[in-house]
Amino acid sequence: MNDIFATLESEVRSYSRTWPTTFDRAGGSYLYDEDGTAYLDFFAGAGALNYGHNNPLLKRKLIEYIERDGVTHGLDQSTVAKRQFLETFRDRVLQPRGYNYKIQFPGPTGTNSVESALKLVRKITGRESIISFTNAFHGMTLGSLSVTGNSMKRGGAGIPLVHATPMPYDDYFDGQVPDFLYFEKMLEDSGSGLNEPAAVIVETLQGEGGINSSRPEWLHGLYDLCQKHGMLMIVDDVQMGCGRTGPFFSFEEAGIQPDIVCLSKSIGGYGLPLALTLIKPEHDVWEPGEHNGTFRGNNPAFVTATEALNQYWADDKLEKSTIAKGERVGKVLEELATKYGGAMAKGRGLARGLGFEDTNVAGKVSKAAFDRKLLMETSGPSGEVLKIMPPLTVLDDELEQGLQIVRESVHSVLA
Amino acid sequence: MNDIFATLESEVRSYSRTWPTTFDRAGGSYLYDEDGTAYLDFFAGAGALNYGHNNPLLKRKLIEYIERDGVTHGLDQSTVAKRQFLETFRDRVLQPRGYNYKIQFPGPTGTNSVESALKLVRKITGRESIISFTNAFHGMTLGSLSVTGNSMKRGGAGIPLVHATPMPYDDYFDGQVPDFLYFEKMLEDSGSGLNEPAAVIVETLQGEGGINSSRPEWLHGLYDLCQKHGMLMIVDDVQMGCGRTGPFFSFEEAGIQPDIVCLSKSIGGYGLPLALTLIKPEHDVWEPGEHNGTFRGNNPAFVTATEALNQYWADDKLEKSTIAKGERVGKVLEELATKYGGAMAKGRGLARGLGFEDTNVAGKVSKAAFDRKLLMETSGPSGEVLKIMPPLTVLDDELEQGLQIVRESVHSVLA
Amino acid sequence: MNDIFATLESEVRSYSRTWPTTFDRAGGSYLYDEDGTAYLDFFAGAGALNYGHNNPLLKRKLIEYIERDGVTHGLDQSTVAKRQFLETFRDRVLQPRGYNYKIQFPGPTGTNSVESALKLVRKITGRESIISFTNAFHGMTLGSLSVTGNSMKRGGAGIPLVHATPMPYDDYFDGQVPDFLYFEKMLEDSGSGLNEPAAVIVETLQGEGGINSSRPEWLHGLYDLCQKHGMLMIVDDVQMGCGRTGPFFSFEEAGIQPDIVCLSKSIGGYGLPLALTLIKPEHDVWEPGEHNGTFRGNNPAFVTATEALNQYWADDKLEKSTIAKGERVGKVLEELATKYGGAMAKGRGLARGLGFEDTNVAGKVSKAAFDRKLLMETSGPSGEVLKIMPPLTVLDDELEQGLQIVRESVHSVLA
Amino acid sequence: MNDIFATLESEVRSYSRTWPTTFDRAGGSYLYDEDGTAYLDFFAGAGALNYGHNNPLLKRKLIEYIERDGVTHGLDQSTVAKRQFLETFRDRVLQPRGYNYKIQFPGPTGTNSVESALKLVRKITGRESIISFTNAFHGMTLGSLSVTGNSMKRGGAGIPLVHATPMPYDDYFDGQVPDFLYFEKMLEDSGSGLNEPAAVIVETLQGEGGINSSRPEWLHGLYDLCQKHGMLMIVDDVQMGCGRTGPFFSFEEAGIQPDIVCLSKSIGGYGLPLALTLIKPEHDVWEPGEHNGTFRGNNPAFVTATEALNQYWADDKLEKSTIAKGERVGKVLEELATKYGGAMAKGRGLARGLGFEDTNVAGKVSKAAFDRKLLMETSGPSGEVLKIMPPLTVLDDELEQGLQIVRESVHSVLA
Repeated sequence: MNDIFATLESEVRSYSRTWPTTFDRAGGSYLYDEDGTAYLDFFAGAGALNYGHNNPLLKRKLIEYIERDGVTHGLDQSTVAKRQFLETFRDRVLQPRGYNYKIQFPGPTGTNSVESALKLVRKITGRESIISFTNAFHGMTLGSLSVTGNSMKRGGAGIPLVHATPMPYDDYFDGQVPDFLYFEKMLEDSGSGLNEPAAVIVETLQGEGGINSSRPEWLHGLYDLCQKHGMLMIVDDVQMGCGRTGPFFSFEEAGIQPDIVCLSKSIGGYGLPLALTLIKPEHDVWEPGEHNGTFRGNNPAFVTATEALNQYWADDKLEKSTIAKGERVGKVLEELATKYGGAMAKGRGLARGLGFEDTNVAGKVSKAAFDRKLLMETSGPSGEVLKIMPPLTVLDDELEQGLQIVRESVHSVLA
Repeated sequence: MNDIFATLESEVRSYSRTWPTTFDRAGGSYLYDEDGTAYLDFFAGAGALNYGHNNPLLKRKLIEYIERDGVTHGLDQSTVAKRQFLETFRDRVLQPRGYNYKIQFPGPTGTNSVESALKLVRKITGRESIISFTNAFHGMTLGSLSVTGNSMKRGGAGIPLVHATPMPYDDYFDGQVPDFLYFEKMLEDSGSGLNEPAAVIVETLQGEGGINSSRPEWLHGLYDLCQKHGMLMIVDDVQMGCGRTGPFFSFEEAGIQPDIVCLSKSIGGYGLPLALTLIKPEHDVWEPGEHNGTFRGNNPAFVTATEALNQYWADDKLEKSTIAKGERVGKVLEELATKYGGAMAKGRGLARGLGFEDTNVAGKVSKAAFDRKLLMETSGPSGEVLKIMPPLTVLDDELEQGLQIVRESVHSVLA
Repeated sequence: MNDIFATLESEVRSYSRTWPTTFDRAGGSYLYDEDGTAYLDFFAGAGALNYGHNNPLLKRKLIEYIERDGVTHGLDQSTVAKRQFLETFRDRVLQPRGYNYKIQFPGPTGTNSVESALKLVRKITGRESIISFTNAFHGMTLGSLSVTGNSMKRGGAGIPLVHATPMPYDDYFDGQVPDFLYFEKMLEDSGSGLNEPAAVIVETLQGEGGINSSRPEWLHGLYDLCQKHGMLMIVDDVQMGCGRTGPFFSFEEAGIQPDIVCLSKSIGGYGLPLALTLIKPEHDVWEPGEHNGTFRGNNPAFVTATEALNQYWADDKLEKSTIAKGERVGKVLEELATKYGGAMAKGRGLARGLGFEDTNVAGKVSKAAFDRKLLMETSGPSGEVLKIMPPLTVLDDELEQGLQIVRESVHSVLA
Repeated sequence: MNDIFATLESEVRSYSRTWPTTFDRAGGSYLYDEDGTAYLDFFAGAGALNYGHNNPLLKRKLIEYIERDGVTHGLDQSTVAKRQFLETFRDRVLQPRGYNYKIQFPGPTGTNSVESALKLVRKITGRESIISFTNAFHGMTLGSLSVTGNSMKRGGAGIPLVHATPMPYDDYFDGQVPDFLYFEKMLEDSGSGLNEPAAVIVETLQGEGGINSSRPEWLHGLYDLCQKHGMLMIVDDVQMGCGRTGPFFSFEEAGIQPDIVCLSKSIGGYGLPLALTLIKPEHDVWEPGEHNGTFRGNNPAFVTATEALNQYWADDKLEKSTIAKGERVGKVLEELATKYGGAMAKGRGLARGLGFEDTNVAGKVSKAAFDRKLLMETSGPSGEVLKIMPPLTVLDDELEQGLQIVRESVHSVLA
């Protein structure tokens, strides 16, 4: 059935191996394969589908736009669609939070945004070194890869990845070591050998790295450390932004305002490629055209992005429901963790995980769930964490149904 | 009018400065601003719109797909839309040319493809160094930027760009020096200090670099040099592929088959983000997931890409008409070059340029053309080349109309 | 008086600023300036004069050799003087300790030895990354500088220093954190982002870094960690070898045998430039001439080195006296530390220091000592440690006399 | 006989393989092995013995200094011996030539000097990139190695050597290409991809690279290019300075004054390790101690260096005799080149070579010469050049005797 994928597509393909079927249609929380089988999606495009598949509210606007021959491709030309997006982003996102970020369209993917952020902090500070964190994931292009932790992915670079030093993420030592003990000592000791950092780049919750959630106080401590030592702070909110953890930005709870924020994945709303780099005005030192890209102005994505902001971020309903659903998931995962020794419930909002000591278990559970028509991936350096990320728009009974499959799948592997 | 772009969008914006109006709709060879003014487009999304704006044949398929809730976002899952694209690409592109490339979806933009290619050649060879060419342009992420020539763009990196050495592009010394004299001597002399290259990366016609076209014999000579010295050959056909110079691949005329080919821009057909990396099967040494990306499977783009291949590459009509139209453009440019001293007609196919000795002229001509409702950009290290790239589907009378504006605009500046 | 030094010598000069007089002669523990003033030397050429100035036993052999026209300069040709050195080093140093190191003459200074070691471990392992330690000092050439901690000295490179990651040295966190907690976690976590290290390079006691002495158990733990994770271990014994801490090698007490050992400074015996790189036979994978250097065979230094080994390492008298004298110094420093709050006695053997919380104190004490005709330098990232390193051959009454000046000088600053 | 060298010395040893005997004594133009066999030395310590072995004039001063207990080891403390050297260098070298260089003692070897120069030009300019030349040799530490051409030696680094780009040395293309065509175009074209260079580093005659002599007009052209493009110029005169090509500095004939000059090898006069970095005063921006080194103040070498300057550089006798002897050598080499097809006479002053097309010949000739008791090494990337560098003090009949052996040795291989 999948012959052409095996024969013609590169060996690099991965999800098609995890879920060996051919998908055709999708809607809301479901994907359907070409035989019509429905799969409940607790994966949500790795965070790109917070509003579900082919969300009908956005779909209507998208088709209208295409039908009326709105500009499709526009590099960074001014367009009506872009203006509407900018105004809406300002009105729904920035102003209510008191933010005054400038907006860069760095190219349509997360790694484009991260690369632009890294370039900019180096340009601003004249320093080359970036602090990343253990088990970070920021993308596959050379700059982003250098601040990514996974050794297999780093090995793909084929050259030494330098100009970045990893520091321990929150709770890396299970509470044995005070926060930032190492990092701060290295900064303060002029003999430490640590190159003076231009910036830190951090995810508030590491999705690929194993659903590792940082505490608000850790994040705030990091922010303070940056202020104190003249480092800029980049939050990579590509996967955890757009409401995945509840609030629009995942760092809101920590009460901080990073110097630069990277957004992508669900910002386009409909699963169309789009990315933003938010920059504090005083840091917007780009020359015109100094960073560019062919698809930085993906106008259909502006349209769906605008509608998503209007539909979901005019009030706090989505935020609240995400938190509520997340707590429901968390409760079930805690039960499972209690029931099965060596398992640990992880995450917050609707970015949840169940970690297993035995690194083979999560993969088996994922497979068992697929057999039961539920899509979940694994994460963590050894794929030891079952990653549970339904669309934020998942219905309550879909959620319960999926959680029941999670229970059964874990049971089928561990019992 | 453009207030929000000036206040909210980053200083990095560029085309919105070149063309100070706000576009709304588009169709075929025209863009329309919000006042309804029509602009004839000799820019074509910097090569992303070879089939024109909102091509109605593709539009129909796109809307059908969205209407029927085809999968929109699918990472690299197998989908029906992807299968159809793979089959069509095999049948319309690979098999007729006797190629057996494997296909990687490296993320949806050209720089994603270039980054994947650079990673792969380093992995294959165990060597770190890449040969790039003077005035090359390959993208803005760190790996791609290191093989890009433009000093302003390189400066944006904020760190030294290393692991690449530029060699002279075809005719860099105006025929004074035999082809590859320098390159080959550096390769053959074990004391030259040139790090042993993993690969060369080359555009057959440098669009951003100034519409510099290489001769087929130069390209073939480069291919032979690669074979002789164990270097892999990457052709970056992001801007010049998909028929821009006539044939589907811009290197066909040279009679070579590169080890790796990068495609993006017009491959999606409709201006939607999509990119491919074509890899000779023996070089497809990726581990599953070793390179990934959220938007590598942009299914709406698969749909329009498939239809574009079916509509335009089932026979040689487009190729022939592109060559014919290109010759027409070339003829007019030659006339202008003859008329105005110090100007030079450049390019081939429908990638054409008019270079001026005075580096300020091309920008003024571009502005004069905008005033006459024609969109053309400039290229070259100092923006000294007027870049003329209409959609390949431009109608003959549109072409003539545009060329007349080109004449008038040049005249208005130089006369 | 020093005019020509100020006018003709580069601004980089340093010790001539610390001790503003012009020295003429020297003998044993004393330097004499051109006015005949004697200075007691608790500096010992920064560890290059373990056997005192112009040691008469070595001087006799040196003059004999010069008089009889023994080969002076011999690159790495075989010479009688080199053979005698090799035999003596084997008999006095290697065989008694059960070591089977091969000996490389990498050029006559410590940094030549460190550079050769770094090149070799990278060649052996095919990995690029080196683990260094906080406050390490390994030399001023580019490779050595990249594993050196001091930020002022690193800044001199003018380019980013990469391919090395600093780890916390012993007791970096004052006992708050278990040894190697951070390092081991980073090694074991495949998502940590730490590039797989070729080797660690370590001083058992950091002289320049502030007289930081590592415990034998820490050093042994590091050795075990290297074994466990396939990292090679380089001990830089340039300053602390040749008996400075008591035994010939400073790591003997830890019961380990590093893969590579760097020796220089006092190995020549008489203050003449000489360096060795000791390599376990299985790691001696150099090609002939792959590392070379004009002065790697400094034959007069072979002669004095041979005599020094014969005179001082045929029995354990020097080792024992060094330890005894070191304890005497330590006792005085402990008294001072007790007497003056915020001071700390540091070091072992005859590498001793007195650290002060106020980073200005040590420099003032050094100056006060100079006024009292005692030479001592400072070390540590802010020069906050008074560094006390008399020749190992210092006589007991010279030691007491010097310690009395130390007391007075500290008193003059702090009382 | 050589057992201990084979068993105990690292595989990296090289000259001991070329000349398989054990040397004991030396004097003037001769080395004597332990059996008393005399070898005429046309190698001169690879340029470190311009005044011959154990020159009796210098020897007398050296022994006097040691006998009277002059300071031997003094880091960069002011000493009487250093003052005398500085004054003499000023009076004999700098002032007569109208130079106002500041003098740095960067450590006692050529590579220390080169490393200090590279650090300094990067610090001065804030740029990272250095232009080196094909077949350059500058040393084995990481910075120097990155500007060295030989691929075997570069391979020893074990990491990518970056931050330097090689340009063609004089006559690299046998006159086919105008001087600096490539280099200047790369500098002037802002799209070339060449990182803006901090400096060029150049040997006026490449000793290790194959006795490649640059023309004064080429060197002056390079100097002009540096002035025009804001690059600093470093001349590495380590091997070719101190009169090897006739004048004290090898660049005098070109009428230029480089920004920085590296001296070592024969500057110590007697074969003792010593190196200088000469810096134009406006470039002496070092912080005190920013570059240091244990053996930068090798006082016995100051003594012999001073005497060498007084004996040989108070008038122009040595310069004239070097040129005369060099012409004599050149004449013989021209005769040989004429007699044996494919051979080429190279070099100037007393740095001479005979290049062979067959890369095996020079090594065989060297061996044949050794059998005839004449020491000559080979150079060039494949060891294809017989390198003839007698002491400058070689007597006329020694020269004739040696040239006769050269003739016989060439004949024995080629006839």
